[in-house]
Amino acid sequence: MSEQALRTLFEDYLGAHLPQGGVVREAMAYALGGGGKRLRPLLVLMAVEAAGGSAESALPAALAVEAVHTYSLVHDDLPDMDNDDFRRGRPSCHRTFGTAVAILAGDGLLTWGLGLMADPDLRRAHGDRECLECLAVLTAAIGDAGMVGGQALDLGFGDASREEIDQLKTAALFGAAAEVGAILGGTERLRQPLRNFGQALGRAFQAVDDRLDLKTADPLLTGPLQAAAERHSAEALRQLLLLGPAGQELAGLVARLSQRQA
Amino acid sequence: MSEQALRTLFEDYLGAHLPQGGVVREAMAYALGGGGKRLRPLLVLMAVEAAGGSAESALPAALAVEAVHTYSLVHDDLPDMDNDDFRRGRPSCHRTFGTAVAILAGDGLLTWGLGLMADPDLRRAHGDRECLECLAVLTAAIGDAGMVGGQALDLGFGDASREEIDQLKTAALFGAAAEVGAILGGTERLRQPLRNFGQALGRAFQAVDDRLDLKTADPLLTGPLQAAAERHSAEALRQLLLLGPAGQELAGLVARLSQRQA
Repeated sequence: MSEQALRTLFEDYLGAHLPQGGVVREAMAYALGGGGKRLRPLLVLMAVEAAGGSAESALPAALAVEAVHTYSLVHDDLPDMDNDDFRRGRPSCHRTFGTAVAILAGDGLLTWGLGLMADPDLRRAHGDRECLECLAVLTAAIGDAGMVGGQALDLGFGDASREEIDQLKTAALFGAAAEVGAILGGTERLRQPLRNFGQALGRAFQAVDDRLDLKTADPLLTGPLQAAAERHSAEALRQLLLLGPAGQELAGLVARLSQRQA
Repeated sequence: MSEQALRTLFEDYLGAHLPQGGVVREAMAYALGGGGKRLRPLLVLMAVEAAGGSAESALPAALAVEAVHTYSLVHDDLPDMDNDDFRRGRPSCHRTFGTAVAILAGDGLLTWGLGLMADPDLRRAHGDRECLECLAVLTAAIGDAGMVGGQALDLGFGDASREEIDQLKTAALFGAAAEVGAILGGTERLRQPLRNFGQALGRAFQAVDDRLDLKTADPLLTGPLQAAAERHSAEALRQLLLLGPAGQELAGLVARLSQRQA
């Protein structure tokens, strides 16, 4: 399927599964909405297809990855963390619902996301072993050796380079999303290359993000970030070689992400 | 095994698996220490044995339940939640490590706990289907229809009785712990009775807790809570009948919990 078709598939599925009823679920749904780029769930679905599986049957896993990503945005934005009042052009979750509800909405999103690995449809379509492998891959990318650890380093707890922080905060979940796709696609030998692919794509994505954040076209400032984005994109493409023509859609994603202007 | 033997087994396992290295892991270990009663992991292990399984092989699941319980304590104590400076007679996690690290430690504990459902030893000993069933049971008890939802109601978001809040905040995880035990004990027909047992035990535990919190012996005040504790204890015992003599250790736990004075 094309990226656009997969995007529609995912948005429809998300729309049909948005939490509702009560303030915590409202806050969860609010955070999940708001025009996210849905890169991580797309990466799951595209990786599934590249690995020879069906995107539809992997939708619960794509939703899981988006819920986990959204949890991290909600908690990272909190006043005691990055203290961001806006997210995707709207007031952030805690600005809209208060800090207590935002903490709980993040906890709820994280719990929901990981619980989706036991979704009956996902289990039926892919098998229990595969679901548990995905759970292990995801929790490793989230916890104290992944996003949680990266956010602590980003806040200044401990010594780490920008690259190490980006690896934990961004690339780990990109890598996990692609590896989840390989697992659900049913092609064990593609787990490592797709994981590497996802991580390189995550690093490229972060470099582009940092370049766009500069809000300048001065090549002295943008040059090094542009070079990093291209280096990581090339590494991502190199990992796709093993897939042959099946990697075409993923290669297109690399190109679009590394050239985006907003 | 006796309650004391199971307690030692669990403490040794926990001690060997405490997170270490970096401030978030330190905060996770700090919150996991500090003389908790370990009721929920004990409940897992005792339920496993009552259902005919081996407690040793269920240790990762017991640790998972304790990690999840500890996450909820760390987040509930936060300044924007219950704002508790002390926990188990020591400064609470955020008083010791700061609010940002406490939020991350809670996230890390929750992630770690749920990830333990994919622990290789647990999978080998009990099977992938059983591990995923446990994941589903646990996440249902934690999320927006469990502890997370209960904490929101407790903070005043939405209308609910004290009983409904206690059910979500306390009884749900007790019920899940006992059901996880039934699943890992390998006796499907005991899932529902052991889940009911755990929930009733949780309600009895909460009533005793509330009575002790009164810090008075005035029977006009303690009477209704004592009566509730006894009613819920009787309900818990009734659920054990199906187990016959295998329910003896669990019955002993009911007696000790309902009669405790501290």
